[in-house]
Amino acid sequence: MLPLKFHEGGLIPVIVQDQKTREVLMMAYANEEAVRLTESTGSAHYYSRSRKKIWKKGEESGHFQKVGRILVDCDEDCLIYEVEQTGAACHTGYRTCFYRTLDGVTIGEKIFDPEKVYGKTGH
Amino acid sequence: MLPLKFHEGGLIPVIVQDQKTREVLMMAYANEEAVRLTESTGSAHYYSRSRKKIWKKGEESGHFQKVGRILVDCDEDCLIYEVEQTGAACHTGYRTCFYRTLDGVTIGEKIFDPEKVYGKTGH
Repeated sequence: MLPLKFHEGGLIPVIVQDQKTREVLMMAYANEEAVRLTESTGSAHYYSRSRKKIWKKGEESGHFQKVGRILVDCDEDCLIYEVEQTGAACHTGYRTCFYRTLDGVTIGEKIFDPEKVYGKTGH
Repeated sequence: MLPLKFHEGGLIPVIVQDQKTREVLMMAYANEEAVRLTESTGSAHYYSRSRKKIWKKGEESGHFQKVGRILVDCDEDCLIYEVEQTGAACHTGYRTCFYRTLDGVTIGEKIFDPEKVYGKTGH
C-alpha cells in the first residue's frame, strides 16, 4: 500500500465514482482506519467530521458501496473509490450528490424519498 | 449562482472531470475569486495553498482546462469542473493525477515528459 498523506485531523478526501457509468457520486473524508476497513471488507467506509466516528456507507440507508479499486493521486493526499452503488449515493434521494449546476439547475435523477429511507429526523 | 460554503481559509474542494471520457483528472482547491474567474473566463482557475495565490491551470504548462459545466454537491461545499483537457492534467506527465492504485500499480497513461514542459526546477 502506498504511503498516504493524511491531513486536517488525520483525514484524506475521497472522491467516489461509479465504476461503470464513471459518474462522480459524492466526496467524503476517510481516516487511516476507514481506508483499511474499506480495503479489508470491500465496502466503503468514511470518517464523519460532525459525528467524529467512522461510518460505513449504507449502514442506515441500505445504500452500500461495493468498492472495486482504490486509486491514489500524484501527491498521495487524495483517493478515488471506484464503486458499485446500491440505490443512490446522496441522502437527498438523488443518485449523485452533484445533482445541480452552479446556477441551481437540477440535472440529477431522484431515486428514493429520503423520508421513507431515513425517517423524518434527517440522516 | 448557488451560495457556496467555503471552508479551511475560504477554500472549496474541486473535483476535475473530463467531460467526454468522465475520467477524474485531479482534485484542487478554489476560493471564491477562482470560482468567479472560472465562470467568467471559461478556463479553470484554482487557489494554491502553498503559493498562496490564484493560478490558472495551464499558465505554465500550456495544459489548459476549458470548463463546460460546474456542478455543486448537496451540501454546497464541493464542486465539479467538467473540462476539456489540453494535454495532461498531472504535472508528472500522466493524463490524470490518479494514475496508480492504492497498491502502487501504475494504470495511467503518460502523455508528456515533465522536464521538457516545466524545466528541471519542478512545477
